[in-house]
Amino acid sequence: MAATRNLMRAVRVFEFGGPEVLKIQSDVVIPVPKENQYIRSGTYARKPTLPYTPGSDVAGVIEGVGEHVTAFKKGDRIFTIGTISGGYADYAVAAANKVFPLSDKLDFKQGAAVAIPYFTAYRALFQKGHAKAGESMLVHGASGGVGIATCQIARACGLKVLGTAGTEEGMNIVLRNGAHQVFNHREANDIDKIKEYTKMEGVDIIIEMLSNINLAADLQLLSCGGRMMVVGCRGPIEINPRDTMTKESSIIGVSLFLATEEEMHECAAALLDGIEAGWLNPIVGPEYPLEQVAKAHEDIIHGSGARGKMVLLL
Amino acid sequence: MAATRNLMRAVRVFEFGGPEVLKIQSDVVIPVPKENQYIRSGTYARKPTLPYTPGSDVAGVIEGVGEHVTAFKKGDRIFTIGTISGGYADYAVAAANKVFPLSDKLDFKQGAAVAIPYFTAYRALFQKGHAKAGESMLVHGASGGVGIATCQIARACGLKVLGTAGTEEGMNIVLRNGAHQVFNHREANDIDKIKEYTKMEGVDIIIEMLSNINLAADLQLLSCGGRMMVVGCRGPIEINPRDTMTKESSIIGVSLFLATEEEMHECAAALLDGIEAGWLNPIVGPEYPLEQVAKAHEDIIHGSGARGKMVLLL
Repeated sequence: MAATRNLMRAVRVFEFGGPEVLKIQSDVVIPVPKENQYIRSGTYARKPTLPYTPGSDVAGVIEGVGEHVTAFKKGDRIFTIGTISGGYADYAVAAANKVFPLSDKLDFKQGAAVAIPYFTAYRALFQKGHAKAGESMLVHGASGGVGIATCQIARACGLKVLGTAGTEEGMNIVLRNGAHQVFNHREANDIDKIKEYTKMEGVDIIIEMLSNINLAADLQLLSCGGRMMVVGCRGPIEINPRDTMTKESSIIGVSLFLATEEEMHECAAALLDGIEAGWLNPIVGPEYPLEQVAKAHEDIIHGSGARGKMVLLL
Repeated sequence: MAATRNLMRAVRVFEFGGPEVLKIQSDVVIPVPKENQYIRSGTYARKPTLPYTPGSDVAGVIEGVGEHVTAFKKGDRIFTIGTISGGYADYAVAAANKVFPLSDKLDFKQGAAVAIPYFTAYRALFQKGHAKAGESMLVHGASGGVGIATCQIARACGLKVLGTAGTEEGMNIVLRNGAHQVFNHREANDIDKIKEYTKMEGVDIIIEMLSNINLAADLQLLSCGGRMMVVGCRGPIEINPRDTMTKESSIIGVSLFLATEEEMHECAAALLDGIEAGWLNPIVGPEYPLEQVAKAHEDIIHGSGARGKMVLLL
C-alpha cells in the first residue's frame, strides 16, 4: 500500500449522495504544504466542493512543513481538526492553526478521535452553554464520539453527569466515561426516569445529538433557566415554544465551524491539558480500513447504537 | 359608582373558561392593606385560585398604607405590577415591592399600561436577550402593549428597530414609537422583505409575540448568534432545530414571573428613568368600562390587530 513517489490513496467524492459516492482512488497526487501548512502520513481519519476528499480529523506523523512553519518538524506526532486536501487519504495537508501535538499518552487511533468530538463538546458545554461546576447535565446519545467527550469533560469540570444510550454496551461505555447515571433511551419511560432521578428539578444542560427526535421531550426535562444544546439534528420536530417560557429555558444551536480563532485556542488549551491530566481519553469504536469507508458511513447512519468514535485505518 | 363604606365593584372569576367567566360584582368587600401593602383607588386596570379577581397592572391614587410602609402615603399617584387582591376592581391591595411612583408626565390610563409590557420588554431585550447598542431587533407583533414598549426601549438604547403589524393603523403606531422600519406581517412575502431590508444579514434579536405561528420563519431571519425571544405563544409549531445550528442561534423563553427581586429593581430603575427622560410613553389603545371586561378579553383574543395597550376604566 506504500504510495509511489508522487501518488497516494485517497477517497474522492465526485457527486453528492449516499455512502456509495465515496470512491477510493490509488493515483491521487500527494499534496505539497505551502508556507503555513503541514503534511501528515500514517493517517487515521474519521467521518466526512466536488470532487473532494472528505475527512477533517486525522492523526499521524509530520512528513514535511511549509517554509514558515516553526512549531513542528518532520517526524512529530500530531492530530488535526481540519485539513485542506482531505483527511481520507494517505497524506493530507493542513493549515498551521488546525494542527496540534499528539501526546505520547494517546495512540494514532485515539488522536484521530479527539478533535471535532472534544472541541464540539467543550464549545457546547462552556462557550455556548455556560456550564458551571455543580450543575447537572444530560447527554442524549452519550455513547458516540461527542457524547463520550461531553461526559468526560463535564465530569472533570464538576458537573453532575447523566447520559443515555440505546444498548447495554453503550450504557456501560457511558458509565465508564464520566456519567454518574445512565438511562436507556429506547425504553418508553426514559424521560420519566430521568426526571425522577433529578428529584423533578430537571437538568440544567442537555447536550442533544438527535434533536429531531428528542427536543420536545427535552424541554420537559430542563430546569428553570436550563439550556438545551442542539449538537445533532436530522430533521424537523414539533415543539411547544411555551415550554421555553414557563422555565425561561433556551434552545441553543452549536456549530464548531462558527468558532473564532480565539475560541478554538481556548478549546485546544483546555483539551490538551485534559490529555496530560489523563481525564481526556478518547474511546475508539468500530475500525474500518480505508477501502470500507462507504460501509463506515452506512453503519454510522443505520447502526444499532454508537459505542465510541468510528475510525478509518490506513 | 362610588363604593359604599366597605363594599366595591370587582370582577370575580369562579370557574376557568373563556371571557364569559369574568363576572362583575358590586358587593365585594374592600381589602385592607397589611404591614407592607398599599391600597389604591381610581384604578385603571389592564388585561387579566378560584374565585379570584384578575388584573396585575393598575394605576391610581393611594388610599391607605400598611403600618410598615414609609415610601408612600395616602394621595400619592402610583402604578403597580401585581396586586394581592386583584386589579379589576375599584380598590386593590398590593405588596410594597410591586408599587412604583407614577410621574406627572403620565395619566392613569398610561400608568396602567406601563408595568408588565415594559418590564417584559426590558427583560426580553436585556436580561435574557443581552441586546447591545448597534444590534438590529425585530418585534414580530409590534403594535400591542409589549411590542410598542419594546420598540421604544430598543430605540432609546441604540438598536436598529424593525417591527411588524397587521393593519395600516398598527403599522403607523409602530413607526411613531421607535421603529426605523415597519412591515405588514399579513403580506405573504413579509419575511423576504425583512431579510432584504437587513441586506440578507438577518436580525440579531427577534421579540416574538406569536411563536406558534412565526418561530420557524424567525429562525430563517436571525443573524449568526441571533436570539429569538419567546414572549408570546398560543400553541405548538414544527421547526427544524438544524436552523439553530447553522447560525448558532438561540430560542429563549421569557417570563417576567421568574425575575428575581434584583432583576425587577433593575427593570424599574431603567423604566422610571425612561419616563422622566420622555422616551417611555405608553400608548393606550381600546378602552373599556369595567362592566365590559368580558368583551375586552374577547377583543384581545379575536381582535383584528393590536393598536396600543388595552385598558379597563373605572
